[in-house]
Amino acid sequence: MDYKVLGKQQLEETLASERKVFKKLQKTGRSIDMTRGRPCKEQLDLAIPMFQLLVDANFQTAAGDIRNYGMPDGLKEAREMFASIYDVRIEEVLVADNSSLSIMYDLLQFAKQFGVMGSTPWNKLPKVKFICPAPGYDRHFSICEVLGIEMITIPMLDDGPDMDMVEALVKGDESVKGIWCIPKYSNPTGITYSDKVVERLATMQTAASDFRIFWDNAYAMHTLYENDVKLKNIFDVARKAGTLDRVYQFASTSKITLASAGIAAFMASETNIADIKSKYFFKTIGPNKTVQLAHVLYMKNRENTAKIMKQHADIIRPKFEAVEAKLAEAFTDDEYVKWSKPNGGYFISLNIKSCAKRIVELANEAGVKFTGAGATFPYKLDDHNQNIRIAPTVPTVDELNVAMDILVSAIKIARMELVLEKCFSN
Amino acid sequence: MDYKVLGKQQLEETLASERKVFKKLQKTGRSIDMTRGRPCKEQLDLAIPMFQLLVDANFQTAAGDIRNYGMPDGLKEAREMFASIYDVRIEEVLVADNSSLSIMYDLLQFAKQFGVMGSTPWNKLPKVKFICPAPGYDRHFSICEVLGIEMITIPMLDDGPDMDMVEALVKGDESVKGIWCIPKYSNPTGITYSDKVVERLATMQTAASDFRIFWDNAYAMHTLYENDVKLKNIFDVARKAGTLDRVYQFASTSKITLASAGIAAFMASETNIADIKSKYFFKTIGPNKTVQLAHVLYMKNRENTAKIMKQHADIIRPKFEAVEAKLAEAFTDDEYVKWSKPNGGYFISLNIKSCAKRIVELANEAGVKFTGAGATFPYKLDDHNQNIRIAPTVPTVDELNVAMDILVSAIKIARMELVLEKCFSN
Repeated sequence: MDYKVLGKQQLEETLASERKVFKKLQKTGRSIDMTRGRPCKEQLDLAIPMFQLLVDANFQTAAGDIRNYGMPDGLKEAREMFASIYDVRIEEVLVADNSSLSIMYDLLQFAKQFGVMGSTPWNKLPKVKFICPAPGYDRHFSICEVLGIEMITIPMLDDGPDMDMVEALVKGDESVKGIWCIPKYSNPTGITYSDKVVERLATMQTAASDFRIFWDNAYAMHTLYENDVKLKNIFDVARKAGTLDRVYQFASTSKITLASAGIAAFMASETNIADIKSKYFFKTIGPNKTVQLAHVLYMKNRENTAKIMKQHADIIRPKFEAVEAKLAEAFTDDEYVKWSKPNGGYFISLNIKSCAKRIVELANEAGVKFTGAGATFPYKLDDHNQNIRIAPTVPTVDELNVAMDILVSAIKIARMELVLEKCFSN
Repeated sequence: MDYKVLGKQQLEETLASERKVFKKLQKTGRSIDMTRGRPCKEQLDLAIPMFQLLVDANFQTAAGDIRNYGMPDGLKEAREMFASIYDVRIEEVLVADNSSLSIMYDLLQFAKQFGVMGSTPWNKLPKVKFICPAPGYDRHFSICEVLGIEMITIPMLDDGPDMDMVEALVKGDESVKGIWCIPKYSNPTGITYSDKVVERLATMQTAASDFRIFWDNAYAMHTLYENDVKLKNIFDVARKAGTLDRVYQFASTSKITLASAGIAAFMASETNIADIKSKYFFKTIGPNKTVQLAHVLYMKNRENTAKIMKQHADIIRPKFEAVEAKLAEAFTDDEYVKWSKPNGGYFISLNIKSCAKRIVELANEAGVKFTGAGATFPYKLDDHNQNIRIAPTVPTVDELNVAMDILVSAIKIARMELVLEKCFSN
């Protein structure tokens, strides 16, 4: 609401009484962690059969025993599985160990040390820049930061990054080498890129020949409802446009099987795959294929993975809905408090201008932890100090109800404090 | 033997008749791979209980459920296990995924990109050099090669690297930043560093403050006989000398549990650990802890691991002895053919001056594959063209007998060809 209309005295009284409410809530003494997108115990339990299947299969595939060195591309069956899920060719898939983030880091470090498919090593260039639609994933931004890649923050709109800005940036500046994208159920806003945005990304003119789209398609299977949002396959568009070398696609099963004990995939044109394999050759003797086989036996293919993801959705949907209900109850039609209503993914994104830091601080005092305000922006600079990422999957619905009461009260307090300071201070 | 004494004509006849022997052997049409140190099927079978133990434990440790993000240092129990096996402190251990080689690569890349504990990034130095005792492990050398680190080849003696050379090199040249060491049952010569060598390495004066010993202690538990050779603990010496920051120790279970599906460890001073963790932070959300737990449940501790390694030794000892028997039968007291009689590890190292390439080529024609001659030297430059690495663990004893007959015959042919060319050509 617009607290200005209350006038100074009434606002002070309202704030005082809200503080009492908050104090009471604080006394419940709950410790609730909503900092990161983590699966909850019930989700993790779904994957328990995985290793029993591995034992039962006695480590054998059609190709024989998989318990020795070799297969640097990953297990053939695992590559087939990702190819089926992401609708790409098996030759375009490398399957690695547990972390897609680690692959992204490696590829950027390879580019810096060796260049991309023969281009000048980025370490030797005076400047390298990446386009960072924000709010976005803090871990993407921190890789750029540590590797000294300058981040250009651009707005994330409801249908993807602001493409007018992206096109202008990549066309005019050879030092712009890449863009971070979470194209489906984006972290944290939950939006999915429109067909038009996918097409423009795949076909835009780039000044840098070694420009790469870091297509972190982490939530491809992670719908909360029957009506999964469809993301246009960027490989199809880019293949047709002759720009397939531009796309680095990433995936992992961290939120399909076990967080930090899943498998990750890198998907790209065969030319890119050859380039990256030639660099990985020196770094590793190949991935852990037993873990890959356990995954193949459990996940099987796209269709069966969709069934597994329905079980996940059934567990976490009520949690998203509990958050939505509390926010709607308190702030429907409130022009100052806006939040996303995602169809999938792991996050709800909340915007309250000029208040994010104070709200996170207040919630923290009451035992409810959110990712630090600003974390979803490059250099942690949220110019409007407005974005808070809510990760509702780990707490129970009961815990979420407590946490959201605390958050709602913290929002009200922070907004009243702001209005008092901005409009009624001497 | 000294073929010169035969005179030209008799030598030509002897060579002709040996070639007939070789042709006959070649007709057996066997395909036997001795290129790399790989465990055989019977060894891999030993680890089959590992994942059943994991399933039975229901992914729980004393600290609770391990199926989620977190613990970037690795599972506490896994760190304790490596600390017990290598006699270091738990604070000095990080446990990672399946590849110690990958950790070595990462640390070198970190040093190049960011420097070591605040030193100048090696990428910014005009030259960086590593000391490479040879023959050694080809994978160490290829990391240096791809990262543009100049390799200084020095002789590997029976008690370790030539320390007079090492000391002179590190003392006088700030660009010498490291040395590769496989201190126990070295690849490929099988020797173990003497106490004196360990002490000199730990206490020598280095011009570079960011000099690091890459202590790849891969075969610490890999004795073939009851009388395990004892390697002096370099952590003890270095700790006392105040040089502990100089040591990076590596280990993996690739040849204890499953090749390429084991777990790897990095061990170093707490200062180094903090430095490396601060760099890994950006690269990964942590290792696969389910695989680590499976290992802990199976390997347990040093004592139990020694029992497991005795089972391994019982399987592979007869293979080493088959190779030894064939070489001894043909070449005892032959001053031109020398080989190692290792007490542990995975290799037998064979030296026949000026003949290695030809022998590997001949054996290959007969279906017996060895690592390319020269591979055990930096830049693949074996100046004496003499070293061949025999990896006897995968073939059966029967196959080894066939392979060794072929190798023995190939050695004789290559030596006769050489003498004919050197002494009797016009």
